[in-house]
Amino acid sequence: MTNLKIGLLHPGAMGVTIGAAALVDGSPVGWASNGRSEATRERAAAHPFEDLKSVDALVQWSDVILSVCPPHAALELAQSVADAGFSGIYVDANAVSPATAHAVQEVVEAAGASFVDGGIIGPPARQAGTTRLYLSGERADQIAQCFDRSPLHAIAIGEQPGAASALKMCYAAYTKGSSALLLAICALAKAQGVNEALREEWEISQPGLADRAKGAARGSAPKAWRFEGEMREIAATFQAAGLPGGFHEGAAELYHMLAGFKDSEAPTLEEVVATLLA
Amino acid sequence: MTNLKIGLLHPGAMGVTIGAAALVDGSPVGWASNGRSEATRERAAAHPFEDLKSVDALVQWSDVILSVCPPHAALELAQSVADAGFSGIYVDANAVSPATAHAVQEVVEAAGASFVDGGIIGPPARQAGTTRLYLSGERADQIAQCFDRSPLHAIAIGEQPGAASALKMCYAAYTKGSSALLLAICALAKAQGVNEALREEWEISQPGLADRAKGAARGSAPKAWRFEGEMREIAATFQAAGLPGGFHEGAAELYHMLAGFKDSEAPTLEEVVATLLA
Repeated sequence: MTNLKIGLLHPGAMGVTIGAAALVDGSPVGWASNGRSEATRERAAAHPFEDLKSVDALVQWSDVILSVCPPHAALELAQSVADAGFSGIYVDANAVSPATAHAVQEVVEAAGASFVDGGIIGPPARQAGTTRLYLSGERADQIAQCFDRSPLHAIAIGEQPGAASALKMCYAAYTKGSSALLLAICALAKAQGVNEALREEWEISQPGLADRAKGAARGSAPKAWRFEGEMREIAATFQAAGLPGGFHEGAAELYHMLAGFKDSEAPTLEEVVATLLA
Repeated sequence: MTNLKIGLLHPGAMGVTIGAAALVDGSPVGWASNGRSEATRERAAAHPFEDLKSVDALVQWSDVILSVCPPHAALELAQSVADAGFSGIYVDANAVSPATAHAVQEVVEAAGASFVDGGIIGPPARQAGTTRLYLSGERADQIAQCFDRSPLHAIAIGEQPGAASALKMCYAAYTKGSSALLLAICALAKAQGVNEALREEWEISQPGLADRAKGAARGSAPKAWRFEGEMREIAATFQAAGLPGGFHEGAAELYHMLAGFKDSEAPTLEEVVATLLA
């Protein structure tokens, strides 16, 4: 097949590895540097991406727009691409609810583009076997083929837009939801003066859980600022299916309390607990 | 020490093993059969417990009253024991919030009794090493000694009433909270048509989670009718500490939806999911 030109919005920590994966398969990758942070510029500069400067110019250049951004920004980003008159394939790979994915679909289809729903599971795709890009929609197969020989495993799971987002919501509902729960519990135990007793009980009957809590502090607190929006998307997905949204409303609240850890390096569980109880 | 006479309210599936454990250590154990179910009578009849028929007579007979009941019934049970003029040691071993434990304390102390807070972690204590009874309060040590040589491991964790309840809340917050979360996720995945894709992703990146979901259906759905109250106690405990109560409001809602599985034998995940989506 002809290699499609892929416009990447934006080369964040995750997005830059998705763009690099597309390059491996031979697709030219472009981005738009206007208004992006220094960190994003540095990440992009490490790869032979074409800098089209503006979103408008990138939209003209691209056959595919690949949206990888925090969930709360997904719909606005789609609107800006639609406003620029994009008529290629728009892939929303963000952690949004099926309802938000359908809203993105409406916006881009109104501008004449095709919509492919996506959901990324795993860490930034630097090596093979760690990360999957699930895709759904009529042209999902075509997008999956852009990553055939790359370290990113792209998997088309059907023609139904919304399916890839639903899968991502279900997956993150457990991983990020249970991490938030663990952090809240550690804070509660500390507040009640039973943290040592809880640690000893966990050692007996829940081996590994204390380590998971430390890992959640280290790994999740620095990303809490963008997890809040994802938790709200998940809560909405549960509620739309007639299931309880409370778990992830609670998780959203908890991550909101930890937003100040943005860009911090590997905070300890003690630091995270102290912030939750402040 | 003199063996204390222990009045057991009530010999449910858990309570009967706590009574049996006290017997092992030489404490006479009494109960009150009036108004109890056939299942409870059968369980009690399997042990040399003394049947005092009424709560009033049991209260007169007992040095210690040990309350083991569903959390929503704990305060009412304490009130009935106080009303009968109990002035011994009242142990509340139920899955209640520290605030509810303090309410129980007030009620029994007003009648002249001493209060010991308790929390049970583990399955019914049929064999050594499976089950802990955490105790807190001024006379916690004295109660712990009643189980010195029994299969139940009784652990005094300090003089502060409320600590044992707090520990139980923290513990169950994860075990029962994450089970509820898993069941909700399986229902959501089914509703969205991505349950097969989720199972495959879990096999890659969350080995064991699909089995945990099946275990949660089998083990938790039959007890969901009494987990709802426990989840509400946990939510209240979080909120009182300035932490999100949503996780366990969601879990309470979920277990409420499964209350009809009471007394069912090992329901399958498919059956539980179908009920959640009905």
